[in-house]
Amino acid sequence: MSHQTPAPGALDAPGGPVGALGNPPERILMLPGPSNLHPRVRQALGAPLVGHKDPYFLELMERVTAQLRCLFQTVYSATFALPATGGSGMDAALINLLEPGDAVVVGVCGFFGERMVDIAQRVGARATVVQSPWGQPLDPEDIRRALERSEAKVVAVVHGETSTGVCQPLEEIAHAARAQGALLVVDAVASLGGVSLPCDALGVDVCFSGSQKCLSAPPGLAPITLSPAAMARILGRRQRVPSFYFDLTLHARYWSTEHIYHHTAPVLNVYALHQALCLIEEEGLEARFARHRLHARAATAGLEALGLHLLPEPAHRLASVLAVLVPEGVAEAPVRDVLATEFQLDISGGLGAYAGRLWRIGIMGHSAQRRNVALLLNGLEVALRRQGYHPRPGAALEAAEAVYAGAG
Amino acid sequence: MSHQTPAPGALDAPGGPVGALGNPPERILMLPGPSNLHPRVRQALGAPLVGHKDPYFLELMERVTAQLRCLFQTVYSATFALPATGGSGMDAALINLLEPGDAVVVGVCGFFGERMVDIAQRVGARATVVQSPWGQPLDPEDIRRALERSEAKVVAVVHGETSTGVCQPLEEIAHAARAQGALLVVDAVASLGGVSLPCDALGVDVCFSGSQKCLSAPPGLAPITLSPAAMARILGRRQRVPSFYFDLTLHARYWSTEHIYHHTAPVLNVYALHQALCLIEEEGLEARFARHRLHARAATAGLEALGLHLLPEPAHRLASVLAVLVPEGVAEAPVRDVLATEFQLDISGGLGAYAGRLWRIGIMGHSAQRRNVALLLNGLEVALRRQGYHPRPGAALEAAEAVYAGAG
Repeated sequence: MSHQTPAPGALDAPGGPVGALGNPPERILMLPGPSNLHPRVRQALGAPLVGHKDPYFLELMERVTAQLRCLFQTVYSATFALPATGGSGMDAALINLLEPGDAVVVGVCGFFGERMVDIAQRVGARATVVQSPWGQPLDPEDIRRALERSEAKVVAVVHGETSTGVCQPLEEIAHAARAQGALLVVDAVASLGGVSLPCDALGVDVCFSGSQKCLSAPPGLAPITLSPAAMARILGRRQRVPSFYFDLTLHARYWSTEHIYHHTAPVLNVYALHQALCLIEEEGLEARFARHRLHARAATAGLEALGLHLLPEPAHRLASVLAVLVPEGVAEAPVRDVLATEFQLDISGGLGAYAGRLWRIGIMGHSAQRRNVALLLNGLEVALRRQGYHPRPGAALEAAEAVYAGAG
Repeated sequence: MSHQTPAPGALDAPGGPVGALGNPPERILMLPGPSNLHPRVRQALGAPLVGHKDPYFLELMERVTAQLRCLFQTVYSATFALPATGGSGMDAALINLLEPGDAVVVGVCGFFGERMVDIAQRVGARATVVQSPWGQPLDPEDIRRALERSEAKVVAVVHGETSTGVCQPLEEIAHAARAQGALLVVDAVASLGGVSLPCDALGVDVCFSGSQKCLSAPPGLAPITLSPAAMARILGRRQRVPSFYFDLTLHARYWSTEHIYHHTAPVLNVYALHQALCLIEEEGLEARFARHRLHARAATAGLEALGLHLLPEPAHRLASVLAVLVPEGVAEAPVRDVLATEFQLDISGGLGAYAGRLWRIGIMGHSAQRRNVALLLNGLEVALRRQGYHPRPGAALEAAEAVYAGAG
């Protein structure tokens, strides 16, 4: 690690000042986050900065918390945006709910499930891991048995596993959690706002996400919601939360109508999130979910017409992230390079065990558009042909168009 | 706390959608943070969003880390911006350096010193508190004795105590820390970029700040630097850091030239920070410190001409935050209200024990301008007169002008 060797710092640099880097390129983001920003969201970032105690900002917080309740489909008021990027919700949820020695059941069927185990162990909890192979969802029966045996009062699963493109059904897991009196924690970083997740109806106790995925706000905020039972567990801890910044009881007070000061909010990020949530409100949640499904189906039809296969079975595919297996004889990274350099379109590679074996394509928020799907399929066809892989010309676009025509 | 009572959520709201809040007002921010943004920083936020693994963004990270080394006056490469607001640096520093049972000496002479004690206790460290009255700096001799008695290997102090306007001299404390083989942790949230703080020359091991104060970038990032000794202590921990998001070894790897993925960076905030650091580079650190001193002296001369008194003695005043005692018979909040509503200029009240007894005025970054100082003094004179407090008309502006003339 470079920090071990104190490198000659910029202070000593003979070249003098570091200097400004030129402007960033304009990319089409079909990554599993971040997604492209709507012009209104970009515009919101340019509005005048106010202080974090300004009456305008306090009113904005109240709008945003109400909007987030709609998004999470919850009536609970401990619903707000943590002042840190997507990954922070997982940390905050587990650090607050778990104490040293506590039992927790963690479902692992991909990279982010593994991270939950890591965090649970960091705080000294006893994690019982329930696994399924990458690309398959968890078996709720396994969760039920693990809860019974471990007597854990918390179970944590990933709703949209962005590393595998799997959408985890939650009904039966929620049922198992309720039966054991355990709180259900759901990572919805890759799904919230793109895939239906009615927290109250399902019985989700803690759900967290990121601003930069299906919400299409800039990265920098982590929406989160807690049920009264989850908050009661935190208030009843034996030891205090080992972090001031992530103490969720303090965030709940800051976002309540009392607005008790806790931190300097990332004010401009909240402006942008508010606009992104206004756009969601205008579109309507159901219409938005349908849009994500439509573009995911069209893209999938095109990918299959190219002869490609998705990792998960059709029944468990996440609309917001398509995990596409790299075919035999094709090199993964050069295909992305063609898309990136010749089409200014970004997709992602695989994580962990699937590095080099998957492409991961985001169908998220403002990026989920017909013209982007068309360009993606066109670019993939060109890139695959470079590697001697010959799909039937135009088949991918034709298959996608058939989906759009059917939906028309 | 409102989260205890599940309020009727927006889903049930008879009024339907929450709807957009209108545009924020344009404020002159003479708060102790955030400060106003330079137009170039605002513009940077509007640049196209790229992914956090985009080659452009990786190159930007390398520029920013080099720029931050200049700012912290360090050659150490473990220098980066945490993806969370100002307060997160304190949490991250103490959570990483301290384990349950560790001894730590914490200097407390204001609100933020108290928060350091709180965090140390949250992680289970044994904190020895060295106090001085609010408005006075710590006595280095007290620190030396506490280190000797407690055998603590970490000592934490606040450089610019924004709650009291005190600038803590660090030379002797650093000397005491070195003599005991203890690491020196410095909170520079309110001072970095406005007041000189040569980390390497002083022997500061961990220093953290916020983007939204003297740097005049938007809130949302916490610049931090660690010495090799500090990083070695973290790498040598008995237990893992009880947070994944704030594990500083992972941030150091992400910001190193290896760029090992840790989190989705708040990309646009980093664009803005880069522009803010470019502006600092163009101005020059010494010139910038001199500018902060000049406007602080002019504002102070004006305040004193109004018959007001600053809380700290002249020798220990922080240039970036002026803590002004509310005179007998004057109500604190109404004065701020006049400034806010009639001059669109924001200053802050007191914290903790000094709530209602202090005004706190930020002289920070892009807000530290002659025209802002003039408007502040004019507004204060008007506001004070409303309460039957009668300074000699024009005396404040005259006194400030004399300072500017002398500097001319």
